[in-house]
Amino acid sequence: MRSERLLVIGGVAAGMSAASRARRLDSNLEIVVLEKGRDVSYGACGLPYFISGRVADASELVVHNADYFRKERGIDVRLGHKAVSIEPGFKLVVAETDQGQRAEIHYDKLVLATGGAPAEDIPGFERGNVFNCNDLASAVCLRAFLDREKPRRAVIAGSGYIGLEVADALVSRGLEVTILERSETALDGVDSELAAEIERVLASHGVALKKNAPVSQIAGPAGALATSVLYGLAGSIPADLVILSTGIRPRTALAESAGVALGRTGAVAVDDAMRTNVHSIFAAGDCTEVQHIVTGAPAYFPLGTTANKQGRVAGENAAGGHARFPGIVGTLVTKVFELEIARTGLSLAQARDTGFSPQSVAITSISKAKYFDGKPLLVKLIWDQPTGLLLGCQLAGEDGAAKRIDAAAMALHARMRVADMLNLDLGYAPPFAPVWEPILIAAHEAMKLIARS
Amino acid sequence: MRSERLLVIGGVAAGMSAASRARRLDSNLEIVVLEKGRDVSYGACGLPYFISGRVADASELVVHNADYFRKERGIDVRLGHKAVSIEPGFKLVVAETDQGQRAEIHYDKLVLATGGAPAEDIPGFERGNVFNCNDLASAVCLRAFLDREKPRRAVIAGSGYIGLEVADALVSRGLEVTILERSETALDGVDSELAAEIERVLASHGVALKKNAPVSQIAGPAGALATSVLYGLAGSIPADLVILSTGIRPRTALAESAGVALGRTGAVAVDDAMRTNVHSIFAAGDCTEVQHIVTGAPAYFPLGTTANKQGRVAGENAAGGHARFPGIVGTLVTKVFELEIARTGLSLAQARDTGFSPQSVAITSISKAKYFDGKPLLVKLIWDQPTGLLLGCQLAGEDGAAKRIDAAAMALHARMRVADMLNLDLGYAPPFAPVWEPILIAAHEAMKLIARS
Repeated sequence: MRSERLLVIGGVAAGMSAASRARRLDSNLEIVVLEKGRDVSYGACGLPYFISGRVADASELVVHNADYFRKERGIDVRLGHKAVSIEPGFKLVVAETDQGQRAEIHYDKLVLATGGAPAEDIPGFERGNVFNCNDLASAVCLRAFLDREKPRRAVIAGSGYIGLEVADALVSRGLEVTILERSETALDGVDSELAAEIERVLASHGVALKKNAPVSQIAGPAGALATSVLYGLAGSIPADLVILSTGIRPRTALAESAGVALGRTGAVAVDDAMRTNVHSIFAAGDCTEVQHIVTGAPAYFPLGTTANKQGRVAGENAAGGHARFPGIVGTLVTKVFELEIARTGLSLAQARDTGFSPQSVAITSISKAKYFDGKPLLVKLIWDQPTGLLLGCQLAGEDGAAKRIDAAAMALHARMRVADMLNLDLGYAPPFAPVWEPILIAAHEAMKLIARS
Repeated sequence: MRSERLLVIGGVAAGMSAASRARRLDSNLEIVVLEKGRDVSYGACGLPYFISGRVADASELVVHNADYFRKERGIDVRLGHKAVSIEPGFKLVVAETDQGQRAEIHYDKLVLATGGAPAEDIPGFERGNVFNCNDLASAVCLRAFLDREKPRRAVIAGSGYIGLEVADALVSRGLEVTILERSETALDGVDSELAAEIERVLASHGVALKKNAPVSQIAGPAGALATSVLYGLAGSIPADLVILSTGIRPRTALAESAGVALGRTGAVAVDDAMRTNVHSIFAAGDCTEVQHIVTGAPAYFPLGTTANKQGRVAGENAAGGHARFPGIVGTLVTKVFELEIARTGLSLAQARDTGFSPQSVAITSISKAKYFDGKPLLVKLIWDQPTGLLLGCQLAGEDGAAKRIDAAAMALHARMRVADMLNLDLGYAPPFAPVWEPILIAAHEAMKLIARS
């Protein structure tokens, strides 16, 4: 009797987590991973630090290479294999290799981990000086380009966290950087107070941020390094280098070929066991939507840390287990120059759009005792005014902002009201915090507004 | 008609928090604070850093001085006033000034914030080279002694967090330090894994730690700087300076004079509104016991951050409000040389003593990405094996250990099971965390042991 075969499509965070978890639970399972590129199991969140040079070699971002998975974990990783269609009736995946060969691979269980792709193809994106920072291969190309061409002027389309981190990286390499942001504020999902802090730190490092400036085209003579980035109604900026970071959309074409249903967000719909609507097909990572615990509705929130968790759950269940992924609360942390930025839950605008009746407060406290060089810390809390339920938290500062968000994320997981947060027993010692934890100070300020209504 | 009078006894963390909160809510209330010493409203947690010299001047530890409270907040702070008895039938407090005068002060509402005192009086404690680090005045005396006498050899009795922090401070001033600990491990309330880390860091800085070494006497010729510290059955160490930090006991004599009931721990019993059993008498801070949310029983856990919260609640309620203090989960954070130490909830031993059937796991992960100089991070989780309920967490490492405890403290507040922690949406970015948050890794390890039973 042949053993069961688990087939995983996509070998980055979610895919390799699924394969590894399944192997851990079932040493007899045959596990095959199809990866269209040449790299598996790398930390995409580290790509900006590879571009800056802090990560000297691309291999440092690779947790384990394909050989490791083959030899140490008995996982048959097939690089350069692009899955092109799925025939669920026959439990068959059709793949093409990068040598143009065609292969049909049977599965008993299938995990889709096809990831995300740049959200839009801006005309001119195929030019040689245009890059995204979406995968290891493109980051390697970008760094080689930086080393070879020594571009002077960079334009970054999009001020999401990747755009901001790449801006930081390029400034550290001596480039002049302009960011073109389509909307009215930097970093979608934070409110005006944090956006102002981001603008301040960008300006202080000489980064120009143009808002309401959607990029429409990258133009210029064929083959020339110097291009013009056209934006808005009549804007134009010269650029030796263009980075496209206007967001990620889920890669779903393969799933759709199998009749796998997409959700409202346009990403693959999965239940909390990471099952799709098609029997024996699971999905995980940036190709899927996730349950947002605060809104109670699906959201598209592609992040490596979520992909790892979902992949683990998908792999466990594909191997016959019973793991559950309850969803996210929308936590995001980034660093732009010296500024730590963190958010969780909903922004004020998102809360309003979701149908809550939100109220908010923003305070500035300090990260730790002054005599330990404590820095100002901005805390914003968002809550639902009728119920007092916490909806979100945003933090910014040069010290102690990033991981402080975890306390607020936990409050969201626990569905706490602001009133439940007034006396939380959080860690205090002068080298690490002021005696009144800043998030608690904000909760007390919030309570004044809640009590008044 | 005369206005109501709130009388507060004790002017440090809990007392001044109570007075300030009451003033905020009621501008007409007459508020009197009796403080036996000369200082109010200082951060006692900063005393080790005053001894080391990081805090240059004692005034930096004082949040506001008595004049500020008198002028800016209309609070009648009376320094050098020691309350000696309470007559609740007459709503009267008898005080003595440090000039030997006697005063009788009427109250309508009374807040007891008499704090804590050194746990034991070791024979010889009255010698001129013996100090505790319990209040600002004693820390000022100690620093003056260090400057004047330039002692070379220090012995610290007790390896609680204050003993450890003072050891760090004295080493930074060039002293040879020996710590004598009565029990089998350093820092009561942490398990062997953390205790081993503490021992390692002490040793690496030349601090000798003797365990099972209760101090019995400080002996030597009268008036001499050099004394002998006697410990255990026949131990003796020469010392130019002795620090007593064997713990804190609640100051309850005054409360008892009023018929205020003590709890099982020996500290003043209060409800969640900070009311004692005696009408119109509240209590807060180090003289009280607190509800431990994990055990569901009262505990004595004197900490400045708790005192501030309790004081605020007592002040609000004394002024006619309805605030509640739900209790603590036992969070404690400290730094000993380069080692950050954090704990929350119960240790394995405490969990066993409380009647749980605890199980634990300890893992070593990393504080953040290696290319951001991530450091090893020790995580220990303790849970109740039959129910899977989280009972405690301990962290140690040179980076990112201290405030990471907040996520675990929140899990305790929310009464989470380990199973609820596997996929928490905690902050991730390479400058701040590894892609799998160390606490989650520990939860997954714990889950293996829970699933097996």
